[in-house]
Amino acid sequence: MGIDSTSAAHRPIGLFDSGLGGLTVLRELERLMPDERFVYLGDTARLPYGTKGAATITRYALECASFLLRHDIKALVVACNTASSIALSALREAMPCDVIGTIDPAVARAVAVTARGGIGVIGTDATIASGAYERAIAAIAPRCTVVSHACPLFVPVVEQGMFDGEIVDKIIELYLSKFDFTQIDTLILGCTHYPLLKSAIARYVGTSVTLVDSAYPIAHELGRILEESGRLAQRRVVRAPASFFVTDEVSRFNRLAALLLGKESVTAVRTEELADDITAEQSSSPDVTIQ
Amino acid sequence: MGIDSTSAAHRPIGLFDSGLGGLTVLRELERLMPDERFVYLGDTARLPYGTKGAATITRYALECASFLLRHDIKALVVACNTASSIALSALREAMPCDVIGTIDPAVARAVAVTARGGIGVIGTDATIASGAYERAIAAIAPRCTVVSHACPLFVPVVEQGMFDGEIVDKIIELYLSKFDFTQIDTLILGCTHYPLLKSAIARYVGTSVTLVDSAYPIAHELGRILEESGRLAQRRVVRAPASFFVTDEVSRFNRLAALLLGKESVTAVRTEELADDITAEQSSSPDVTIQ
Repeated sequence: MGIDSTSAAHRPIGLFDSGLGGLTVLRELERLMPDERFVYLGDTARLPYGTKGAATITRYALECASFLLRHDIKALVVACNTASSIALSALREAMPCDVIGTIDPAVARAVAVTARGGIGVIGTDATIASGAYERAIAAIAPRCTVVSHACPLFVPVVEQGMFDGEIVDKIIELYLSKFDFTQIDTLILGCTHYPLLKSAIARYVGTSVTLVDSAYPIAHELGRILEESGRLAQRRVVRAPASFFVTDEVSRFNRLAALLLGKESVTAVRTEELADDITAEQSSSPDVTIQ
Repeated sequence: MGIDSTSAAHRPIGLFDSGLGGLTVLRELERLMPDERFVYLGDTARLPYGTKGAATITRYALECASFLLRHDIKALVVACNTASSIALSALREAMPCDVIGTIDPAVARAVAVTARGGIGVIGTDATIASGAYERAIAAIAPRCTVVSHACPLFVPVVEQGMFDGEIVDKIIELYLSKFDFTQIDTLILGCTHYPLLKSAIARYVGTSVTLVDSAYPIAHELGRILEESGRLAQRRVVRAPASFFVTDEVSRFNRLAALLLGKESVTAVRTEELADDITAEQSSSPDVTIQ
């Protein structure tokens, strides 16, 4: 892409999600790439994405990406399976940097771990309706059989901070009882919110089913891309903390983000830039400085 | 307001909600005022409102109202308790027509029916945090005691079309077990989505608790206002069906709206006008024709 690798290395990596889910990806990125700087955007004012239509999701994804681009990112992680399923090609077309989605890395991992070739996929309404997982699996492992079901209440439950308990168990049963786990040995958690329900899901499916989420495969894939192009960040003496932006108010996000990331505190900045995106682009506003 | 009552009578009444909930109000308006024309807007691309912050909710409410104003409405029904709790005074300031919220009509009814003065209120996070019900009850019945609890999962459950069943019962128990129903004889369903859970809630609370929702009191209040100002619609030979607009895709809305309204079919039109609102206002776009 003709980017000077020396100057590119110090630029941050951008991630976006509708809300908290992408933090499960950020957590893994920070663990594997501690010298990188990250800019995270949670589009909490318009959350959830997964119950909405394809045109709406694509518009939101492009607006999130455009916001992160103004932070001079060297790579974009679409830390939202709904946006990855629906809008990945639109994002790749629009963005002048590498764009990593959640689908292919998780599919590669699921295909590697399945013993009998029976793969289950759970995700939002929009993700499952898109058929993105079926296509990705068929492309690299046409002999695998894939069964997928939407779990539309998982995101609101997680966004309420409910990760366990009787209601969570009931809702898991509502959706996962649709699978025949004698035929499936690998279950893809096809939404970045779902790893927050991992213990409860693992309890339901038992030890014969391997749960695969996108976080580690994405971090691994991004690390490979950056290393190959010489754009990995140099070792830092003082590590820069991630910057967090949300489109709704910060208090709930800060509290749950700190909990999920195991940090003492998280201080997100609220932005209204996405709402003004059309106007802002027309008047070509100056670049935003990272807070 | 200096409006010519003869010409005003034929103009439509506007309603908005984040999604389906306001249809419980529309249903009652159509029953009590069959000669009126209605324009309904469901802001489904940004739903739900109730878990979001006050500034975001106010912006969304003003954008919805502005959209309906371009349909030349004679009165605005804020068919969303969250918007009514947070943004009613901003809406009244911005709108050149009558604006009816959900809070006062339901409170007047609850105060009229309570035998012992113990009133419970359930609503979204934002509605309960606003304290709007406590203030409204204190203003007209200072001796009543009010206990309120947020039920943030009710809206996602209803928007999924789940109105009954084991999970609904568990979620109702999660929230309503916080009330001491020996002290409360009247429960305000402080969200226009909640009447869709009415049978399940009634089963939980039993016959000693009266459930009050906003739909009938709003329709009654609006009828009074229009009649007093001579702006009630004339009896029509052919009744005009309501017009429906949504900000996300139409399929799910059409299906559930038809079910809720007991109509054979509902044909909503998707609008992207709200997303462009800032730009649209600046360029003073021409009035929109009702479809």
